[in-house]
Amino acid sequence: MQTYRAPVREMRFVLEAFGYEQISSLEAFSAYDMETVVALLEQTGSFAVSTLLPTNKPGDQVGLKWDAETGAVTTPPGFREAYGALRDNGYIGITGPEAYGGGNGPETLGIVMGEISSSCNKSLAMCPGLTRGLIEALEHHGSDEQKQTYLPNLISGSWSGTMCLTEPQCGTDLGLVSTKATPEGDHYRLTGTKIWITFGEHDLTENIVHLVLARLPDAPEGIKGISTFLVPKFTNGAKRNPVKCIGLEHKMGIHGSPTCVIEMDEAEGYLIGEPHKGMKVMFTMMNAARLHVGVEAISGAEIAYQTAVAFAKERRQSRSLDPAKRDRSASADNILVHPDVRRMLLNQKATNEGMRALALWTAMQIDLSRQASDEKVQQEADDLAALLTPIVKAYCTERGTANISEAMQVCGGSGFTQDWNIEQYYRDTRITMIYEGTNHIQALDLVGRKLPMHGGRLMQVFGARVTDMIRSAKEDPRMAEFVEPLKAASKTLTTVTMELAAKGMADAEEAGAAATNYLSLFGLTTLAYVWAVMAKKALDEDSAFARTKLKTARYFFQNVLPESESLVSLIRAGKANMMAFDAEELDVA
Amino acid sequence: MQTYRAPVREMRFVLEAFGYEQISSLEAFSAYDMETVVALLEQTGSFAVSTLLPTNKPGDQVGLKWDAETGAVTTPPGFREAYGALRDNGYIGITGPEAYGGGNGPETLGIVMGEISSSCNKSLAMCPGLTRGLIEALEHHGSDEQKQTYLPNLISGSWSGTMCLTEPQCGTDLGLVSTKATPEGDHYRLTGTKIWITFGEHDLTENIVHLVLARLPDAPEGIKGISTFLVPKFTNGAKRNPVKCIGLEHKMGIHGSPTCVIEMDEAEGYLIGEPHKGMKVMFTMMNAARLHVGVEAISGAEIAYQTAVAFAKERRQSRSLDPAKRDRSASADNILVHPDVRRMLLNQKATNEGMRALALWTAMQIDLSRQASDEKVQQEADDLAALLTPIVKAYCTERGTANISEAMQVCGGSGFTQDWNIEQYYRDTRITMIYEGTNHIQALDLVGRKLPMHGGRLMQVFGARVTDMIRSAKEDPRMAEFVEPLKAASKTLTTVTMELAAKGMADAEEAGAAATNYLSLFGLTTLAYVWAVMAKKALDEDSAFARTKLKTARYFFQNVLPESESLVSLIRAGKANMMAFDAEELDVA
Repeated sequence: MQTYRAPVREMRFVLEAFGYEQISSLEAFSAYDMETVVALLEQTGSFAVSTLLPTNKPGDQVGLKWDAETGAVTTPPGFREAYGALRDNGYIGITGPEAYGGGNGPETLGIVMGEISSSCNKSLAMCPGLTRGLIEALEHHGSDEQKQTYLPNLISGSWSGTMCLTEPQCGTDLGLVSTKATPEGDHYRLTGTKIWITFGEHDLTENIVHLVLARLPDAPEGIKGISTFLVPKFTNGAKRNPVKCIGLEHKMGIHGSPTCVIEMDEAEGYLIGEPHKGMKVMFTMMNAARLHVGVEAISGAEIAYQTAVAFAKERRQSRSLDPAKRDRSASADNILVHPDVRRMLLNQKATNEGMRALALWTAMQIDLSRQASDEKVQQEADDLAALLTPIVKAYCTERGTANISEAMQVCGGSGFTQDWNIEQYYRDTRITMIYEGTNHIQALDLVGRKLPMHGGRLMQVFGARVTDMIRSAKEDPRMAEFVEPLKAASKTLTTVTMELAAKGMADAEEAGAAATNYLSLFGLTTLAYVWAVMAKKALDEDSAFARTKLKTARYFFQNVLPESESLVSLIRAGKANMMAFDAEELDVA
Repeated sequence: MQTYRAPVREMRFVLEAFGYEQISSLEAFSAYDMETVVALLEQTGSFAVSTLLPTNKPGDQVGLKWDAETGAVTTPPGFREAYGALRDNGYIGITGPEAYGGGNGPETLGIVMGEISSSCNKSLAMCPGLTRGLIEALEHHGSDEQKQTYLPNLISGSWSGTMCLTEPQCGTDLGLVSTKATPEGDHYRLTGTKIWITFGEHDLTENIVHLVLARLPDAPEGIKGISTFLVPKFTNGAKRNPVKCIGLEHKMGIHGSPTCVIEMDEAEGYLIGEPHKGMKVMFTMMNAARLHVGVEAISGAEIAYQTAVAFAKERRQSRSLDPAKRDRSASADNILVHPDVRRMLLNQKATNEGMRALALWTAMQIDLSRQASDEKVQQEADDLAALLTPIVKAYCTERGTANISEAMQVCGGSGFTQDWNIEQYYRDTRITMIYEGTNHIQALDLVGRKLPMHGGRLMQVFGARVTDMIRSAKEDPRMAEFVEPLKAASKTLTTVTMELAAKGMADAEEAGAAATNYLSLFGLTTLAYVWAVMAKKALDEDSAFARTKLKTARYFFQNVLPESESLVSLIRAGKANMMAFDAEELDVA
C-alpha cells in the first residue's frame, strides 16, 4: 500500500515561521506571495499523488532496459507519461530565469515542490533535478549564445541535463579526472569514460545535455586543471554526437533512475566559462544539488513516516500496559497504545519536521543571498547558506535514512515486504548519504572550509541568530523549556568548535577524525534552533495544529536532543585509536 | 566481488578467553576439545567459501519460483547441490542428540559454525537453522515415538523443519492464534492459514515437518489456549498432507529463503507435549532461534566488514591530511590514510568482535546450563543465558545491521551497487531486527521478565561476573584503561536499572517507553565486559594478534562506549512526551 499526502499545512507553517514574507517582498519574487505558493503546493500535491505515485512501484520492480547495441535506455512503464505531465505543467522550469521561459520562482519554492515530487517518485524526480542544476550552472557561467541555445529547451523540459564527474579511478577526488578535451575550431573533442551518470541516457526528452569535467591538453595537474564542457547528445539539435551509454549500474535502489556508464569518443563539446576553472562551474551546480539531496532524504522519510502511521492505525496487537486503555470490544489493542511504537513514530516526526525546517531555512538564505538589496542581509544569507548546506546534505540524509529504517520497524514483517513499500523507500534513499559528495566530504567541507572561512564569520552569523532567538524569548516564560536546552546545546557546540579548531590547527588528522561526529552535533544543534523558532510561532497561535507542534517540539528537546551528549565524547576521543592500526591489522585473523 | 575468510583465529581466542575448557571438560562434550573445534571451523570455513558463497548472489538475483497450481517452490540455482553438501558433511545434526544420529556437539559449536555458514549464504543457512530448532523442541517435548520417527530424519538433514506461528491477525501477539485443531482418533485435523513461514515449502528435502501453533476445541482464550502440533508435508513418509504453500512474500532481502503463506485444510497433525501448553514448546524453539538470529546479524556484519576492508585496501582517492603519509609514487593515497575511513572500519571491527564474544559467551552458558554437574554453575549459567539472549538478539541485530550500512559507506557508490555485494548483506540482514520477536519484544522480555525474575537474581549473577573481572584486574595496572570505564558503565547500568524498576513498578508504560534504549545500554555494557575479558587475555599473550586485540579493545572503550551517555538521558526522558499525542495528531497536517 502506497499512501501519501503532501504536508502543505506544515510547509506553510515553516515558511511563515522563518519569515517567508522577506522573500516574497523581494522584487524578483513578487509573483510568489504565500497564497500563491500554498496554491502551487496543493496543486503539486494532487499531481504527485495522481501521476507520480502510481509509477513509483513499477519503476522499482520493472526497472530499466538497456540496449547493448544502440546504448538506448528505456525507462519503466509510465515514466514517459508522468515526465510529460511534469513538463507540461511547467514544474521543471519554475525556478528558471524568466528571460528563457522560466517561472522565476524562488529556490525555496523549488525545494518545497521538489520534496513533494520526490516523496512520490524519487527516481523520476531526479531527472528534472539534474536539469535544474544545469540550468543554474549555465545561468551563472554560460555565454549568451549558450544560454540562448540551451536554457529555453532545458527550462521547458524538452531537454534534460546531467553531471558527468566521476570516472572509474576518480570519485571523491575530482583532481584525478582524466577525460581529455582537444580544441578543434570553435569547439572541442572529448574522449573518456564517465561512470555513475544519473539519467545519462533515457527516453524522456528529445535531447540530453551533459556537463562534463575534462582536461585540456595544457591543463595543470589536479583540480586546478579541470575545465567544464557542454556535450549534448544531439549537436545542433539533430546530429548524433558520439556520447554513448555503454552500460547501467545495478543498484540497491532507485531502479527507475538510469545510472549510466558514458563513453565519449571524440564527442563534440563546448567550453563553459574559462579554461581550467571548471571546479567553479561544478560547485555552482553541486551546491544546489547538495541541498536537494538533503531534501530527497526528507522526502523519503516523510512518505515512510506517513506509511508507518497508516499501518499503526490499522494494526491491533497485544494489550496496552495501562489497563485503563484496553479496548474490551476487541481481542487486542491498536498498537498506538504501546509507548515504543509512539517513540519510533515521534522520533521520525520530530526530526523530519525539524529537518524540513532546516532545509527551507537554508533555501530561503539562498534566495536572500541572490536577491536581497541590503548588503548585510545578503552577506549574512550567503554565509548561512554556505554553512548550512553541508549540514542539510549530510545530517538530513543520515537521519532521513535512519528514520525510514525506524518506519520499517514500526511495521514489523510488513515493513520488510513490498506490501507497504517502506523497503523501497529505504533502498531509494540510502544513496543520498553517498552521492553528490559522501557525508564525510560534507563534514570536511564544514570543518575544513566553512568554519575557518572569513575568520570564522559564518559560525558567528549562525551564533548571532541563536542568540537573537534566545533573547527574543526571554520575556516569555513559556519559551523557557525550549530555549534553555537550545542555550546549552549552542554553548556546547561553541566549546567543541573551539577545541576542534585548536586541535585541527595543530594536526589536520584530528579534524578529519572528528568531522563526521562534529557535523552530527552541529546538525542536532541547528534542529534545536529551528524547533525553538517553530515553538515560538506555535505559542502565538491558537489551533490544534499549533498545540501538536508544541508537543512535537517538546519531544524533540527532551527525547531527541540528548543524542548530542555522546557525540561530544566521541569527538573528544580523537584520532589516536584510529591511526594506531597498521593496514594489515584490519584483516580478519 | 564477494570475499570472505572464516575468522577462526578470532573464534578460538574468544572461546579460550571465556573458558571453553569448561565446556569440553563436560562428559557430554568430551569429543569436542579445542583442537577438534578449530579443525571443524577450518573445515566449515573452506566448505562455506567453496560451496555456499558461490550460490549467494544467484540466490538473491534469481530468487525463488512458486507454482500457483501445485504450490511447489523451486529454490535458486545451486541451492539443492549446496544443501546436499551441507547435509552430506553432517553439518546439520552436529548439535543433535547422539542417540538419533546427531553429533552431540555443544550449542557453542553450533553457534560458531552457524556464523560461518550464514556469512556465506544467509538464505540457505536458515533452512538447517529451523531444522535445528525443531530438533530441540522435539528433544525436550516430543514423545519417544515422535523422537524415533522424526529426529533421525531431521538430524540427517533428509527432512527439514519450520515454525508456524504467525497468522494475518497475529504476529507479536500469539494469543490471537486462530488455527483450529480437532481431535480425530490418535491424531488431529488442523485448519487455518499461517504466514511468513520460512522454508515452509521448498525442494531441498524429502519431507518438511511443520511445528504449528493452534487451538483445540476446548481451548481457553489467549496464549493459555495454544497447543503445539507436528504437521508433516508427507505423513508416514509418503501420503501428501493437505498443507500447501499458497503464496510467497516479496521481501527486501533473503530472496533465496522462501517466506510462505501456508494453508492447512484438515491437515493431519500430532500434538507435542500437553494440550494448551504450546507456548512452552514454542519457547524452547524460540530461545535457541533468538541466539541464532543475533549471530545471523553478526555474520552479515562480518562479511560486510571484510568486503569494506578489501575495498579500502584497493581504493586510492585524495591525499592524506598528514603530508608525511603521502605516497609520492601515485596520484592519490590509499583511502586507509583517511581517519574517517578508519573510524568507520574500526566501529565495525570493535563491535563485531565484541558481539561475537557476547554471543559465544551466551552460547557457552546454554551448554553449561544443560550439562554442568555443579548445581550452582548450572543455575548461574541458566540465569545468564536467560538474561543475555534478548540482548544478543536485539543489540546484535541492531548494531550488526548498522555496521553493514557503515561498511557500505566505506565503499561509497560501489557499496550501493551489486558489484561488492554489501547492499545484499544489508537487505538480507535487516529482517533480523524484526523476526523471532521484534527487538522491542526482546526489550520487554529483558525489562519485564528477566530483570524481575527470581527477585532480580539474573542481574545479580551478571553483576557478580563484572565485579569478579574488575577485582581480578586490580593487580595489573595495564588493565586500568579497560577496567575503569567498565566499572563506570556497570555502575551507570545499576543506577539506571534501579530507577527503571522503581518507575516501571508504579507505571508499566514507563518501563515500556524506556525498554528499547535500556536494552541498548545493557548491550553496550555487556560489550564492555567481554572486551575487558578479551583485553585481559590479550595482555597475557605476546603476539601480533594480541597486540591488535588490545588496540581494538582500546578503540571500543574510548571511541564506542561513550554512546551509552545519550542512552541514559533518553531513558530518563520517560514516557510523558510519547503518550501526550492523540492518534490523529500523528497524521500529516
